[in-house]
Amino acid sequence: MRNVAIVGVGQTEVGEHWGTSLRHLSLEAIQSAMADAGVMNADALYVGNMLSGELEGQEHLGALVADFAGLRGIEAFKVEAACASGAAALRMGYIAVAGGLADIVIVVGVEKMTDTLGPDTTTALAMAADADYEAAQGASFVTLNALLMRRYLHQYGYGHKDFAPFAVNAHRNAVNNPYAMFRFPVTAEKFAKARMISDPINLLDSSPICDGAAAVVLTAEAQSQAYSMAPVRIAASSVGTDTLAIHDRRDPLVLEGARLSGHRAYEQAGIGPADIDLFELHDAFSIMATLSLEAAGFAEKGEGLQLALEGQINLGGHIPITTMGGLKARGHPVGATGLYQIVEVVQQLRGLAGENQIPGARLGMAQNIGGSGATVITHILERLSD
Amino acid sequence: MRNVAIVGVGQTEVGEHWGTSLRHLSLEAIQSAMADAGVMNADALYVGNMLSGELEGQEHLGALVADFAGLRGIEAFKVEAACASGAAALRMGYIAVAGGLADIVIVVGVEKMTDTLGPDTTTALAMAADADYEAAQGASFVTLNALLMRRYLHQYGYGHKDFAPFAVNAHRNAVNNPYAMFRFPVTAEKFAKARMISDPINLLDSSPICDGAAAVVLTAEAQSQAYSMAPVRIAASSVGTDTLAIHDRRDPLVLEGARLSGHRAYEQAGIGPADIDLFELHDAFSIMATLSLEAAGFAEKGEGLQLALEGQINLGGHIPITTMGGLKARGHPVGATGLYQIVEVVQQLRGLAGENQIPGARLGMAQNIGGSGATVITHILERLSD
Repeated sequence: MRNVAIVGVGQTEVGEHWGTSLRHLSLEAIQSAMADAGVMNADALYVGNMLSGELEGQEHLGALVADFAGLRGIEAFKVEAACASGAAALRMGYIAVAGGLADIVIVVGVEKMTDTLGPDTTTALAMAADADYEAAQGASFVTLNALLMRRYLHQYGYGHKDFAPFAVNAHRNAVNNPYAMFRFPVTAEKFAKARMISDPINLLDSSPICDGAAAVVLTAEAQSQAYSMAPVRIAASSVGTDTLAIHDRRDPLVLEGARLSGHRAYEQAGIGPADIDLFELHDAFSIMATLSLEAAGFAEKGEGLQLALEGQINLGGHIPITTMGGLKARGHPVGATGLYQIVEVVQQLRGLAGENQIPGARLGMAQNIGGSGATVITHILERLSD
Repeated sequence: MRNVAIVGVGQTEVGEHWGTSLRHLSLEAIQSAMADAGVMNADALYVGNMLSGELEGQEHLGALVADFAGLRGIEAFKVEAACASGAAALRMGYIAVAGGLADIVIVVGVEKMTDTLGPDTTTALAMAADADYEAAQGASFVTLNALLMRRYLHQYGYGHKDFAPFAVNAHRNAVNNPYAMFRFPVTAEKFAKARMISDPINLLDSSPICDGAAAVVLTAEAQSQAYSMAPVRIAASSVGTDTLAIHDRRDPLVLEGARLSGHRAYEQAGIGPADIDLFELHDAFSIMATLSLEAAGFAEKGEGLQLALEGQINLGGHIPITTMGGLKARGHPVGATGLYQIVEVVQQLRGLAGENQIPGARLGMAQNIGGSGATVITHILERLSD
């Protein structure tokens, strides 16, 4: 098995791209990543996407995007794991390069959610949940997360206002990210007064519906210096799964898939949570951020919120999260999110995160979650240059 | 890179499964395949499926099926490449095992097309074509194939009746396949009188809308004897892509993706078309069967139909195709088809194809086509036992 390195990254601005199609968004991200790596071709292209069929009436994105990106003829597929589709596509690219079946692989995540030919976007997103036993009962994605948040507040005695630090941190960090959707700060007061979406989840607990694409170029570490002056090693790549339906879990407040995925990643990288310099977690809702901090070993059960309240999740804290704005403020184009997280960790490890730079960052972790924790994909990235 | 072997296969009957859900169909195929291989667990599960979101309101099949099959926690994704989704999932499993990243992988293809919560099935299938430049103009999948068939008739001077041997051969072979949807023979006379669907494509040129699931268990060849007395080697696994839109191709009657995919497969296996004992091709429409025979090197351009007219595609012929009924008569549950083809080739190589057995079959090829030839995935399987 070969070590795998990321030698190029690219991303589009996240936002409402009414004038730009799925294929154009993909192209923009892929071209940036290929230019960054200085590659003109590839052995394979894996596309992470969740909803192109439901919303745009377009399946078969692999061949479509390959052709439009000037790569006609190469191996290409779409990989789907709900909101974890982006990281799932990366995982496929990792496997192909690590196993020696491909030398150069491009991975792109893309989603276009703001316009739809089919069902409304909230209905489409609920397809990440159990269609027969959750969605058929009327549950949407936000109502399922609201159940978890309500249970968390009840079980551990927190108040809703205690979740404010996640939105405040994410928005503050997005100000300096030119690719972010919401480049303005929010305060704890604004958080407390935000419009209710699904009690107790309010607008500022929630990531937005938006469009975007992000891409990376992978190759074997041994040849990575030929493509990049600052290659980044994928020190771990792991997947953990759980039940789709929350009611099938022993404890709904334990993300067992995240625990498994994190454990496997730490083992592969030979490190523990204390070694991680920054953590791009899956803050689709603030309750998901809390549960994921706990499942990844940064806090005990019921104490994830404490880290946020103490400021440990901020840029200067013990475990900085959402350093470029996270799903909350950079935006969450679902199938693209996993790749945005990776691109941002690479920026940090290259020392190119500008005012949001974590000094001396060497090990960054990204975790992409599908559904309410049913698919959890973890990548640990490591800076190779000094 | 390790050699990969298939050590277990399973399939459900193809048909209209009104009382059986997507997860139950998957389970049935997976349980059969696991029992066949004698495995109780796996490192990963890859699910080939095209339309679960559009038709059933269910994405995120990887985690869902893994959990329902008793494999909760393992790595699991959905892989999509339109009608080639099944073979795309197999390709992913092949990569994972060949590269040494997994020891036991289960691959399942599943599709449930007969009932739908969303758009009608014909509209959903058109998502395999270019949404902006084909489907938006009103083209469906059958009308696109009708254009190709009309062009073929015009360019090479055949009559529509010359396509009859494909349906006659497929239906005759399906009679002996207990898993096939249409277990009755048809005659050339019946073909000539069949109801028109999209001129010149009639009902007997077309594969049916149906439900089904098929699965295989993969492992490294070196350890395959521990799981199967008759392991089958994957001698080649390859992908070729082309434009989604037919109008973007230099010659619409040349499946360039199939030519590429076949060429790569022959090269990997170190063989040529003459060495293939049977060919499970993608006869979604009879014109696709013709073009695929030509692209895979069994006939010159414009002469694929000649093979059929001479009876060379029949069980006793030079290159037997659709030996268990093919897409036409076994049925074409789109995301499952690629795995049905593989299961059938394995049956032939194990010598368990009953009355349809190709005597002494040693090398079988399966080719799964997405869209009108935009993704073409070829697997060559080889019998290891004597």
